[in-house]
Parts: sequence; C-alpha cells; structure tokens
Amino acid sequence: MADRDDVLGAAQRLLNADPTASMAAVAEAVGISRATLHRHFDSREALLVELGTRSLDRWEQRLDEAEEQALEAGEDPGRLRAVLEELVLAYVDDSDAFAFALTDHVILANAALVERTQVLADREAALVAAAQEAGVLRRDLPLRWFGHVTYGLLVAAREAVRIGDIAPRDAGRLVLSSLLAGVGAP
Amino acid sequence: MADRDDVLGAAQRLLNADPTASMAAVAEAVGISRATLHRHFDSREALLVELGTRSLDRWEQRLDEAEEQALEAGEDPGRLRAVLEELVLAYVDDSDAFAFALTDHVILANAALVERTQVLADREAALVAAAQEAGVLRRDLPLRWFGHVTYGLLVAAREAVRIGDIAPRDAGRLVLSSLLAGVGAP
Repeated sequence: MADRDDVLGAAQRLLNADPTASMAAVAEAVGISRATLHRHFDSREALLVELGTRSLDRWEQRLDEAEEQALEAGEDPGRLRAVLEELVLAYVDDSDAFAFALTDHVILANAALVERTQVLADREAALVAAAQEAGVLRRDLPLRWFGHVTYGLLVAAREAVRIGDIAPRDAGRLVLSSLLAGVGAP
Repeated sequence: MADRDDVLGAAQRLLNADPTASMAAVAEAVGISRATLHRHFDSREALLVELGTRSLDRWEQRLDEAEEQALEAGEDPGRLRAVLEELVLAYVDDSDAFAFALTDHVILANAALVERTQVLADREAALVAAAQEAGVLRRDLPLRWFGHVTYGLLVAAREAVRIGDIAPRDAGRLVLSSLLAGVGAP
C-alpha cells in the first residue's frame, strides 16, 4: 500500500521528467487508482504545493547548517567563502531532486510558499551581507541579488543537464565557478 | 474585431502576469468570447506554442544582428566583447516581453520548438567560440554553457523584478555584470 511519502516521491520523479503530467499519470506512476490518489491530494495544486513545501523545508535545513557554520567562521573571509561555496553546492544537489519545482508556475504563485520564500531569502541575504562585509562577495550588488543569481544558475544547470549539454557531475563546479567569477575572461 | 496579433499580444501580457491563466481568462482579457478565441487557437497548447515560436523569432533576429556585427569585428577583442554585451542586453529587453515563455513547461517540451532552440543555441555557441578565441570569454567553460548561464540570469532577473527586489531599469546592468564578472569579490 503506497503511503503519502511514496506518492510524493513518485510524483516528484514523474514531474521532473514531465512537468505537465496529469493526476491520472501520477496515479499510474505510483501504481494506485486515481480515487486513491485523490484521497491523499484532492487536487493537482494540493500535490504541487506539498512538493513546494518540501523543497522549502530542504532550503531551510541548508540555511540552518550554513548559519551555524557562519557563526563559527566569524569574520574570517576564507571560512565565510567556504560556507557559501558549500551552501551553493548543496543547492545544486538538492535542485536535482526538486528540479521541476524551481520553475513551476503553480508553486511560484502560491501565497503561503511565496511568503515563506521571502523569509528564507532574507536569512540568505544576511549571510550575503556578512560575506560582503568580509570582502568575499562584491559590495556593489544588491543583497538579495546573490540569491536570484544562484537560483538562475540552478535553473540553467538543470536545463543544461536535461538536454545533455553538461554532465550531471560537472553541474556543481560550473555553477559555483560561474556564480563567483563569471564567464568573462579575467 | 480582434485579429490574431491582438489576441497574441493580450495573451502574452496576461500569461506574464499569471502563467497559469486559462483559455477562458485569455478570452476575457482579449475581450472576445471563448468560441472566438478557439477559432484562432484550438487549444491552450496551440496558443503557447505560437507564443514560443514568436520568442524564438526574436532570438533569431538578435542572433542575425550579432553575427553581422561579429563579422565586422573580426578578431578584435574589444569589438567582440561589445557585440556580446549588446546581445545580452537585447535579450534582457526581450525577456521582459516574453517573460513567462522562458520557463513555460509546455513550450519547453514542444518538439519543434526544442529542435529550433538547438539550432539557435549552436549559432550562439559559434559566437562564444570566437569570443573565447579572442580572449573575451573564459576558455575553460563548455561552449554551450554561456547560453545556459545567460538564460538562467534572464530567469533570475525576471523573478527579481517580478517580486520587487530590483528595479526593471537595473536588470540589464546586473545581468551583464554578473554574467561576465560573477558576484564574488575580485
């Protein structure tokens, strides 16, 4: 008997491969009837919102870890840079599992998820402020821009992997290097 | 009487504001009946594919211009860099109009659009190769990665503008500067 976690796991894998998959297709992928699926989630939107919630849970967990490390790093530029690099590489790992959720229009428009996203983005911006202060990140860019660029590069890497332009194992290095140093010649 | 262009223009504006808008909502935004809308486009997918086609038409136009300028620039690094900068700034302008199409899952999955995207991406990669050769772009990155990063930054800028984190007038400068130099301190 498929429990809620099984349903969510199978739905996520299917939606990553086909973001427009219907509830009927999700039920088939899980191996349950459409009626059973509807007992778990009464609409496609409810299912998407739950998947969006899980991706924010993961983001929050990563920020918890990074904030703890940043506290230990104090104002040491090398250690703060390492904290940020580890955070971005963790995002790249996570974005593979939560791929479709990055750009799903239903998830991006859900009020509760949007509100929580803002809270997490502010926590991330506090880490960026410390890194700017320590000379690790450019000070001429808006605090919240770092998060947007990181998000954009996660979307880019997912798309590049999906169509076969880069190897999955190269995604972390390419995202991190492009984020920090850009693609222009030094 | 609304013609096809009026319908497409109104649909594009509505979908940029609400990417999940239904055909009924599109008809209302255009000011026509649903039956009339269906005479223009027999499904929501057909409408989205037409909008995706228009965004690729624009991309192709921008590449035509850039290739002509690159031909004149020859191997001059300064001029090649200017060509790329102008191209990216043009993309930022265009992405405001075609915003939702950047990440629409129906558009991204359409076989004809995907095939045409690959052809255009290869033309862009040829410009990147010339710029790498002239020392304008990093040579340690895959040719097609430049296009992916640019795409990711367009998605990032659109999202940052949409939620009010950056001013629309700053989008071009932020995208270009982050693309070429990254967000890390030099």
